[in-house]
Amino acid sequence: MPGNTFGNIFKITTFGESHGAAIGVIIDGVPPNIYINESDIQFELDRRKPGQSKVTTQRAEGDKVEILSGTFEGKTTGTPLTLVIFNKDQRPQDYSKLKDVFRPGHADYTYLKKYDIRDHRGSGRASGRETAARVAAGAIAKKILQSKAINIVAHTLSIGDIKAKKIDYTVIEKNIVRTADMDAAESMVKKIEEVKAKNDSIGGVIEAIVHNCPAGLGEPVFDKLDAVLAHSLMSIGSVKGIEFGSGFKCSEMLGSEHNDKIYLDGKKVRTRPNNSGGILGGISNGEDIIIRLAIKPTSSIAQSQQTITTEGKPATIMIEGRHDPCLCPRIVPVAEAMIAITILDFLLLQKVIDNSIA
Amino acid sequence: MPGNTFGNIFKITTFGESHGAAIGVIIDGVPPNIYINESDIQFELDRRKPGQSKVTTQRAEGDKVEILSGTFEGKTTGTPLTLVIFNKDQRPQDYSKLKDVFRPGHADYTYLKKYDIRDHRGSGRASGRETAARVAAGAIAKKILQSKAINIVAHTLSIGDIKAKKIDYTVIEKNIVRTADMDAAESMVKKIEEVKAKNDSIGGVIEAIVHNCPAGLGEPVFDKLDAVLAHSLMSIGSVKGIEFGSGFKCSEMLGSEHNDKIYLDGKKVRTRPNNSGGILGGISNGEDIIIRLAIKPTSSIAQSQQTITTEGKPATIMIEGRHDPCLCPRIVPVAEAMIAITILDFLLLQKVIDNSIA
Amino acid sequence: MPGNTFGNIFKITTFGESHGAAIGVIIDGVPPNIYINESDIQFELDRRKPGQSKVTTQRAEGDKVEILSGTFEGKTTGTPLTLVIFNKDQRPQDYSKLKDVFRPGHADYTYLKKYDIRDHRGSGRASGRETAARVAAGAIAKKILQSKAINIVAHTLSIGDIKAKKIDYTVIEKNIVRTADMDAAESMVKKIEEVKAKNDSIGGVIEAIVHNCPAGLGEPVFDKLDAVLAHSLMSIGSVKGIEFGSGFKCSEMLGSEHNDKIYLDGKKVRTRPNNSGGILGGISNGEDIIIRLAIKPTSSIAQSQQTITTEGKPATIMIEGRHDPCLCPRIVPVAEAMIAITILDFLLLQKVIDNSIA
Amino acid sequence: MPGNTFGNIFKITTFGESHGAAIGVIIDGVPPNIYINESDIQFELDRRKPGQSKVTTQRAEGDKVEILSGTFEGKTTGTPLTLVIFNKDQRPQDYSKLKDVFRPGHADYTYLKKYDIRDHRGSGRASGRETAARVAAGAIAKKILQSKAINIVAHTLSIGDIKAKKIDYTVIEKNIVRTADMDAAESMVKKIEEVKAKNDSIGGVIEAIVHNCPAGLGEPVFDKLDAVLAHSLMSIGSVKGIEFGSGFKCSEMLGSEHNDKIYLDGKKVRTRPNNSGGILGGISNGEDIIIRLAIKPTSSIAQSQQTITTEGKPATIMIEGRHDPCLCPRIVPVAEAMIAITILDFLLLQKVIDNSIA
Repeated sequence: MPGNTFGNIFKITTFGESHGAAIGVIIDGVPPNIYINESDIQFELDRRKPGQSKVTTQRAEGDKVEILSGTFEGKTTGTPLTLVIFNKDQRPQDYSKLKDVFRPGHADYTYLKKYDIRDHRGSGRASGRETAARVAAGAIAKKILQSKAINIVAHTLSIGDIKAKKIDYTVIEKNIVRTADMDAAESMVKKIEEVKAKNDSIGGVIEAIVHNCPAGLGEPVFDKLDAVLAHSLMSIGSVKGIEFGSGFKCSEMLGSEHNDKIYLDGKKVRTRPNNSGGILGGISNGEDIIIRLAIKPTSSIAQSQQTITTEGKPATIMIEGRHDPCLCPRIVPVAEAMIAITILDFLLLQKVIDNSIA
Repeated sequence: MPGNTFGNIFKITTFGESHGAAIGVIIDGVPPNIYINESDIQFELDRRKPGQSKVTTQRAEGDKVEILSGTFEGKTTGTPLTLVIFNKDQRPQDYSKLKDVFRPGHADYTYLKKYDIRDHRGSGRASGRETAARVAAGAIAKKILQSKAINIVAHTLSIGDIKAKKIDYTVIEKNIVRTADMDAAESMVKKIEEVKAKNDSIGGVIEAIVHNCPAGLGEPVFDKLDAVLAHSLMSIGSVKGIEFGSGFKCSEMLGSEHNDKIYLDGKKVRTRPNNSGGILGGISNGEDIIIRLAIKPTSSIAQSQQTITTEGKPATIMIEGRHDPCLCPRIVPVAEAMIAITILDFLLLQKVIDNSIA
Repeated sequence: MPGNTFGNIFKITTFGESHGAAIGVIIDGVPPNIYINESDIQFELDRRKPGQSKVTTQRAEGDKVEILSGTFEGKTTGTPLTLVIFNKDQRPQDYSKLKDVFRPGHADYTYLKKYDIRDHRGSGRASGRETAARVAAGAIAKKILQSKAINIVAHTLSIGDIKAKKIDYTVIEKNIVRTADMDAAESMVKKIEEVKAKNDSIGGVIEAIVHNCPAGLGEPVFDKLDAVLAHSLMSIGSVKGIEFGSGFKCSEMLGSEHNDKIYLDGKKVRTRPNNSGGILGGISNGEDIIIRLAIKPTSSIAQSQQTITTEGKPATIMIEGRHDPCLCPRIVPVAEAMIAITILDFLLLQKVIDNSIA
Repeated sequence: MPGNTFGNIFKITTFGESHGAAIGVIIDGVPPNIYINESDIQFELDRRKPGQSKVTTQRAEGDKVEILSGTFEGKTTGTPLTLVIFNKDQRPQDYSKLKDVFRPGHADYTYLKKYDIRDHRGSGRASGRETAARVAAGAIAKKILQSKAINIVAHTLSIGDIKAKKIDYTVIEKNIVRTADMDAAESMVKKIEEVKAKNDSIGGVIEAIVHNCPAGLGEPVFDKLDAVLAHSLMSIGSVKGIEFGSGFKCSEMLGSEHNDKIYLDGKKVRTRPNNSGGILGGISNGEDIIIRLAIKPTSSIAQSQQTITTEGKPATIMIEGRHDPCLCPRIVPVAEAMIAITILDFLLLQKVIDNSIA
């Protein structure tokens, strides 16, 4: 506490407002002797950045990352790694209209109640822009996990009522909505364009999978792997729900259906059909970890909406500016980042036990 | 870390295995000068205890709580409050058959992989029995919150495909499934009895509401109120998903539908229809906080199931003993406890800001 | 926070008041598969217990420890280890006279100011009795460290102006003041008896050494090994100062004198004369870690002293009851315990790096 | 953990190496609505900066601080305050000679053992330069404390065997050694110049006082105010010991001498002569908090010293470059900063209790 730090061993602390000087992250606990360079991080930032396609906001931030500390001759040293992105495309004047009114679906009122002060420029700290720092830190985590053959993939499972019916990971980055079903992609894009034309926005579901996560990660009782992943992912703005494996469907299932069968695949202990979603008793069992996130429709819409002023007078508001009609394509890399940060933290923590003293 | 502590100011650390000497909790950070006695806690423990009705396990643990420290002349002193429940109805011999085999849907394999040792007596630390310590701590939190008129109520929203259609909080404790719809209660009980007769189990959904939570609770960026509630509640065994307000339905909604309208009700800032579930930008807005949890069917069922032995040989297993055919009625008080612990922690933390130095 | 937990991986949380039902400790993060039994712990508790010799208080608490959780078939399981000592020799009536008056040198006034309530029975939580929980936890830590050939020894270096002139670790437990100089022991005992005869008390210095601590323990910048040891040891009541290696003498030294020379001893990098006290830049270098603690004279003395009542009236006070005329002999095992807990925590934490991913 | 974060509510996380791009700090938990500007911080940084007088190193870093986040229209917002100092006067080539050899008294060997990699440019993260981030954060803490009339003053009590005999706080900033005794100042400066002329360095003692600290700060049992201050101050490089109030002298005192008398001064409860140093049972009692620190002589000296190479060959080393002949004048503001950060953190934490729910 209070709130801008996440993790135990691989521990990130982020800072910055959407229209301040910069946003960034200090990562403490990065393993030493790992080759890191800015392009490793930039690749992931570019997946999150605004203006990348016709279905995202048209703001054009470059989001260039700089490494301020923690490396020596291209390698990590074990000391804090600091990544910073200086803000460029600031147009705080876009927000001056919003100074005296609370935007529906936004944190304007709640921040003011909490702190008795509010940075109204583009949501300040509550802006989705803070996720760039998460993605930067996640890029480091992903690189380390990939060296251990642990891969994390997220994709858009549905946009409104359009659902992906196939799962082909190789096509995710080949369509602008980041779905794993190339056929659904077209309908999803069309749906978003329709909604955008009406100055509206739409929600969706993102699915994420951790492949090849070793068994044994997660801590009883409160820091179960699924509990901490839920913390980690629910902390991303606009996520209204999370489920693992069978998820909410489990509520209509019998125990005899839901229990995964245990079997041996060569020397590996396996379970099927993986209703558990790769986690039993809060600890990974070696199967794919399967997570789904409910993403709400973007709150910023250019329609007249009922609200009140900061003085308590009834008002209507129309939010102009450049906003995402659907958040899913840009949350996909953010979700991957938070999962990577969380899994790596548990992986490092497990080294304490795996190399036990006894 | 590592895992048996939760909270920042009101901080609980639990211990104990289902068939060890005792389970219990140390609560650090209890506000001083609060009258506490064992009956405050016992009331909540009795709502969680086994053997309370025909739809729960028939084990008959008394679950009597003792206060070992932290009070003086009936009042809290600000020092750690220790609550302990000595285990009575231990039948470890019931579990000796399970020594060499992994139970499907349980943490047997994952604990063994994690620690290279496993207490097979009734799941050891992974037993649902550990939740008694949560309920004991939660009873203290609830008492303090109630003195501030903050109330937390959970109830069974559905069992299998039987859903509550009305919400009447006054009937929850008047039916053994703890649903808020007296008509649905009968069908739910019948459903559970049918399933039990077939040596099977069934899942359900629990809903919880926080009434009268003050605006301003929750910490940006990682310790958003919903993120920490998700952590807190997903750490309860058998929970496979969580959602807030509109939840997964948000994925099919438009922004113009989803955004709650802001209005003034007397002097109070209100929003409707409360799709946000009382939390915006991770901070409470004063509306009811609305949470739903997916509860999987009990893993312990007396049916033949496919598994392997700890030596890696294929095997079948039939889990005897006394188990809950549906976990919802007993998880209701556990969910309330975890919510109370979490809300109180944020309430105490907010005192730092509300009484600011500036 | 708030205050009753110490450590990161090997993490202890203690509870209990001197005249409550019990005192104890939950240890989270104990490595699994370690044989532990009550006698391992009892041995250390007996070194701390009152009534052990003529130079300690004549109270006769048995201090019998019980293990409430965390072991299975004699071995640790990785789950929280709970150790409890039920209080026996309670004479709260001894303290009723102290209810309305602040004892000089005690925490009576400060606890009341902090919490607006005070448990006056034998100092409550501020009693030296809480250190029994530390010693119990420390016994586990010492056992684990000893299996790695890391040994921690503390001894009384001086009592008043009587100083040990020789250091022979083998005699420490052979004299009741726990000094490493058998010749000094006699004078020290005599000194304590003189002081006791005058209803007075006396201070002293304790030295502690960690032998065979591996190089590399300690975390930059804030969690330097010496900084965390200082935290750990200064948290023991009655410690007024701490120094490492050259300690306060360094203030009169030149750099050319103070810098230890670096040389090779076989394959081992060594330094001499070890003014650094085994720690450089906050990280252990493999030399003996050398620590000295200033111990104040016991505050409870049976002499008339000037004070005020809780109502603010001038008063005199004479503290009867059974108190230690010198705290050093009983703080020796407490200091060892806190050092063991701290070193083990860093040793476990270093496993994360030593088995790095890169 | 791991190591670059300090504090609970007012929580600082620092980063940066002496010859990297920048050093800095994120402060989480800054109270909102406080006016902050760069000049508040710069004033304190200038007291720490190199090149400020003939008795400090002649390196001439400007140490200009920039605020990257956490303020809006000149006031803090409750979000993380980020302060950064870009490094200017880097001469990494000065250090290339030190690449393959371990400097006596430095962290070269210990960092290499810990991380298996070492940034040899000016000690990297182990450089005293990291304290600039502490001073920057401390400037914010001091400003807030001053608004509550809590003042922290540190001064040089001795350099080698030259001791201050008077304490006049008004002269501290009027002499370049920062002593409170103007007469001693001259001898101290002379002493340092003599030592410097011989390419040597010298140690000293710093005393610090917290005036007007409210009673009730500090947390039992492990987070006693003196224990956490010891952690905080021992984490500053070159500090070899710390004592409070009577300090090591207590070891030769009787209880009847050492116990402070309690009396009423108007309505205020006071004690004298303050041997406790303002802390009883780990909690402040309202008297001046008195702390003394032992500062070792600077390790970097331009004399031939015995060491080994990183390959394990015997070698001699002569450390050139620009170093402080005595660290005391520059550690004075660092000590004040760490005390301010610690006291403010406890003050904020106490708000939770002072405004209790009961």
